[in-house]
Amino acid sequence: MDTMPRSVTRLIDEFHRLPGIGPKTAQRLAFYLLRAPKLQVEQLSEAIRDLREKITICAICQNIAEENPCGICRDETRDYSIVCVIEEPLDLVALERTREYKGLYHVLHGAISPVEGVGPEDLRIKELLARLRDGRVQEVLLATNPNLEGEATAMYLERLIKPLGIRMTRLARGLPVGGDLEYADEVTLTRALEGRREV
Amino acid sequence: MDTMPRSVTRLIDEFHRLPGIGPKTAQRLAFYLLRAPKLQVEQLSEAIRDLREKITICAICQNIAEENPCGICRDETRDYSIVCVIEEPLDLVALERTREYKGLYHVLHGAISPVEGVGPEDLRIKELLARLRDGRVQEVLLATNPNLEGEATAMYLERLIKPLGIRMTRLARGLPVGGDLEYADEVTLTRALEGRREV
Repeated sequence: MDTMPRSVTRLIDEFHRLPGIGPKTAQRLAFYLLRAPKLQVEQLSEAIRDLREKITICAICQNIAEENPCGICRDETRDYSIVCVIEEPLDLVALERTREYKGLYHVLHGAISPVEGVGPEDLRIKELLARLRDGRVQEVLLATNPNLEGEATAMYLERLIKPLGIRMTRLARGLPVGGDLEYADEVTLTRALEGRREV
Repeated sequence: MDTMPRSVTRLIDEFHRLPGIGPKTAQRLAFYLLRAPKLQVEQLSEAIRDLREKITICAICQNIAEENPCGICRDETRDYSIVCVIEEPLDLVALERTREYKGLYHVLHGAISPVEGVGPEDLRIKELLARLRDGRVQEVLLATNPNLEGEATAMYLERLIKPLGIRMTRLARGLPVGGDLEYADEVTLTRALEGRREV
């Protein structure tokens, strides 16, 4: 298409490479930016450039951060005796929103998935084991996703960490709050029955 | 959310400002870029920055271009006697794809829309009239969109240009090729009947 200026087609191509952005959306975004305030365009360009320059990985919890160690690992008000193992940085955001958890985190950056060719060696498991060696951690809370990959990862970690004599826990399975019993799937309902508690 | 590095939340915010990008999509895009090859991230950032620096408006046809006049207006193999009036640069791309039209274009950059507060003075109509004055243009092909705003704009232009004694044409209305008569709306079918041709 030489009916569109090169710089426009180039931007459309770049947008199109992003996940979930089809050719039409890419076109719409590019034409939006052509008319958007110059400041907004510059800020977007800078935000993308800065992302990779400013972001590092916390040497302790492996989370993305701008400082190393990250804010949570440096926060002395937190409970250093418990480490919550999660798959992705966004899982940390979700857990922090509860304001319930006061311990530390460990981000695996993925889950074991033979289908996608992700093995234990691709995850930050070595770093987790190293953290557990100094004896300060008394509980490992496994908070991987409640799906096939997350369960496989949790089982793998259980086998590795149990021999160290550290207490291991997992997030409860059951009915989601605000959900509808009628629409709950059998597996979730089975887990809710198994985990029933005295009232 | 100070549970995410500032540069990440900043990028999520910038993506979220784009049309059609919700908070979840913005988050997904930002985290994709965190893991994407460094080169891709740089290319996206540059493509956005270059867009506004390299793009200008062709002084003749008002289309977006990297040179002024644009490639089509400078192309001596094209038919200078006919000007196709369109609303947006993307309409030109659609028309060029047909490989049928060999004349010039004029981009209005919008259509008259009282609802959105767009009046004739907001469109590139003055520039169109100036082009018609030198006597080279013998036909104006109105190719605004077949909707309320496009029709209003076409009618407005008709009133302005007719007195100049220039031939005025419009794109045919009728059944879309590959469409289904059964599902055609009344207005389209009425236009198809009105425009029926001898076979």
